Amino acid sequence: MGLGPGDECLMAPQALEAIHQADVVVGYTGYIKLIAPNLLEGKEVLSTGMMAEVERCRRAVDEALSGKKVVMVCSGDPGIYAMAGLVMELLEVRDLFRDICFEVVPGIPAFVAAAALLGAPLMHDFASVSLSDLLTPWDKIEKRLKCAADADFVIAIYNPRSKKRAGHLNDAIRIIKTFRSGTTPVGIVNKAYREGQRVQLVTLDTVNEQDVDMQTVLIIGNSSTRAVSGKMLTPRGYAGKYDI
Amino acid sequence: MGLGPGDECLMAPQALEAIHQADVVVGYTGYIKLIAPNLLEGKEVLSTGMMAEVERCRRAVDEALSGKKVVMVCSGDPGIYAMAGLVMELLEVRDLFRDICFEVVPGIPAFVAAAALLGAPLMHDFASVSLSDLLTPWDKIEKRLKCAADADFVIAIYNPRSKKRAGHLNDAIRIIKTFRSGTTPVGIVNKAYREGQRVQLVTLDTVNEQDVDMQTVLIIGNSSTRAVSGKMLTPRGYAGKYDI
Repeated sequence: MGLGPGDECLMAPQALEAIHQADVVVGYTGYIKLIAPNLLEGKEVLSTGMMAEVERCRRAVDEALSGKKVVMVCSGDPGIYAMAGLVMELLEVRDLFRDICFEVVPGIPAFVAAAALLGAPLMHDFASVSLSDLLTPWDKIEKRLKCAADADFVIAIYNPRSKKRAGHLNDAIRIIKTFRSGTTPVGIVNKAYREGQRVQLVTLDTVNEQDVDMQTVLIIGNSSTRAVSGKMLTPRGYAGKYDI
Repeated sequence: MGLGPGDECLMAPQALEAIHQADVVVGYTGYIKLIAPNLLEGKEVLSTGMMAEVERCRRAVDEALSGKKVVMVCSGDPGIYAMAGLVMELLEVRDLFRDICFEVVPGIPAFVAAAALLGAPLMHDFASVSLSDLLTPWDKIEKRLKCAADADFVIAIYNPRSKKRAGHLNDAIRIIKTFRSGTTPVGIVNKAYREGQRVQLVTLDTVNEQDVDMQTVLIIGNSSTRAVSGKMLTPRGYAGKYDI
């Protein structure tokens, strides 16, 4: 299930209900902390650190197999760079789809939350690219950035930085700038709807890698995106067709 | 603000609160119907038909300018093929950003709701393309489909059909098939989380344009996406790196 960006006011009732119904709550420690403590009372809570995704999902499946109701919590949406797919892979490998009832409860994704704070940057066709090369070769990431920029998609960037990977964001910006003006607006959102939230509006020329961490999402405008009163606007095209 | 896909159990508390606080609720008739009638009691409700977007947003701005609290309801997320951008354009043209406090309340987008019903198709980089050529030239849409397919993005398709535009979905599928196998899984979701919901899993070779309407979202797998126990799974890549 997806908690949404973090603030309870953006968590769907179905997500709350999933926690309420669960015997066991499994998740990354940082996400478990986003849940109100009273919701977790009387429940078994299995939290693990950032890099233990496979172990976390395996334990969730084991608990479910023992007959317990298990909820795996993810921030944002569980199907976007999160755990829904890995749980499915484990169910597939162990041939458990008949034994375990598997359901995905969607949430407001991080890039959609970031967009809302920035204004209306996603109003036209968009693409989302993760810069994490832990599971994806960097040349595949580069190709996606090139194609997305060439086709004039608004581009959401996930995982723009890690300790192991310096320079990836700068490489990505350089690729996008071969297709798009340096004055293109870029929204940088850290910790959307969480304590410490920070929203910045810069341009492709002025993106600073120091402003991003693994909790940052960037939204890069298309060729029509403009800054309007401190917000980011990608027009859909009404002004060209209708008298607005 | 965004209602999410339609079912109240997926509407964020902040969205409910926005309706609760509003003097005036503006929206497409079909979306107003998704709101529980008791929530609308005592409020001015301005609903308009499908094609009156500009008129709808203009009235919302006029009402806000008269000092009322106005909420413009959209299904899904208000910033994805919806009204957040047009409201911003009107505020910009009329230079009203200092007079009217503008805020976007995000919602679970239609394609994210569709993905949850299908399993985990969005686990890797994805692109979203609307096939509506009312405001976008068809050759631009074709270019985006080509680039998205070439870069191996999972592809969400919005607005796959209208009365005026027969054949666009078939054209889109033909373009994508020049880059991707005909056996690639395709999820077709009509009316996600609404009365009449229908979820189908087919392939690029077997997509039938008769199965889609303007309330349908399609999700086309990338080169790794597979059908697993009637669901759609795009592996992130854990199996190649870890022993799962």
